Order: sequence, then structure tokens, then C-alpha cells
Amino acid sequence: MRACDSAITLAFSVLGKRWNGMIVGVLGSGRASFVSLRKAVSGISDTVLSERLVELVEAGLVRRDVAEGPPVTVSYELTAAGTELVPTIEQLGAWAQRNLHSQG
Amino acid sequence: MRACDSAITLAFSVLGKRWNGMIVGVLGSGRASFVSLRKAVSGISDTVLSERLVELVEAGLVRRDVAEGPPVTVSYELTAAGTELVPTIEQLGAWAQRNLHSQG
Repeated sequence: MRACDSAITLAFSVLGKRWNGMIVGVLGSGRASFVSLRKAVSGISDTVLSERLVELVEAGLVRRDVAEGPPVTVSYELTAAGTELVPTIEQLGAWAQRNLHSQG
Repeated sequence: MRACDSAITLAFSVLGKRWNGMIVGVLGSGRASFVSLRKAVSGISDTVLSERLVELVEAGLVRRDVAEGPPVTVSYELTAAGTELVPTIEQLGAWAQRNLHSQG
């Protein structure tokens, strides 16, 4: 049996944190403001969403754009690396739909 | 923007927990004993590996096999649902290798 693949470890160092996969999945539909992201990722708090976005920007998956105003508007979109991940996340969703049952 | 896909939420309810994706990835190479799993998933403790295996069995991704002895031997292998997930996990690893840098 091979040793645990370090690339998989690396992938889950980002995607293994709660919400990160979902945030990337939502941004897969296009650029979004903080408020619309918070609505789309139901159950996340402002604080946690802020933290996750900082991490995703640092990991190079998400870009934060500030458009000069007035009013100044901040939005988030996927980088090329983030965009490349979207089909895989959608495959995970399709797999879950076929194989997992939500547990109350 | 669409609302957060509930199937993606469901997928990450299992895969968003630390080690679960790696355990499935390792079992993708074939059936393994507890001890060889612990060696392959470097950094995991006995207690946490036990907990994760129980969860993966409950989620229907892993099967626990007991072969009558002596000595009795316990091994773990992927179910059909777990096996179906392996190519997607490998895609995640390949994506990470192209796009992420390990952070010391």
C-alpha cells in the first residue's frame, strides 16, 4: 500500500476546513459581494466567512476586488486556480447525491 | 447566483472532516488493516483513526471485515460508494499539486 499521498493531504489542508469547498462552489457561479456570499452559504457567520475568505485569498483560490466608489464596493471572485477546482467540487456534489443521505 | 448546493454541503459533511479524504484515498489502493492505515495516514492518532473509521462505515464509504482466526484479523476496505469517490479525490490531489504550495 502506498504512503498517504502528500498532494491529497495538501488539497484537504484547504478543502478540509468547513465551508471552504462550499464558498468555492458558490463563487463558481460568478463574482459575489460579501453579503450575497453570506446568503448563499447558509449557516455561516460574518466572522467565519471573513476568516475563510482571507484564507482562500492567501491560498490563491479567490481574488478580492475593490472598485473605487462612491460607494466603494468589494467583491470576490475565483482565480484561475479556484476556477479549475469547480468541476471537481461539482463531481463531489453529484457523488454525494448518489451515495449519501443527509443525516438529521 | 444560485443558493449553496445542498449536495456539496452533504459531500463536505463527510469529506470536510480532517483525514476522511485521506483515509478514502489510502483505501483506494486496496484493503488495509488498522495498523497499516495508521502508518499510511501519517500524523493521525489511534483514537482519531478509530473515530474516523466508525464515521466512514456509518456513512457507507468503508466496510469493516472481520476474518475468523486464530488470529482474528480486522481489515477495512472501500464499499462501492467509497470506490466511486477515489478518482475525484485523485483529481483533488492533482489540482493541489498544480496550484497549492505547502505552507511550512
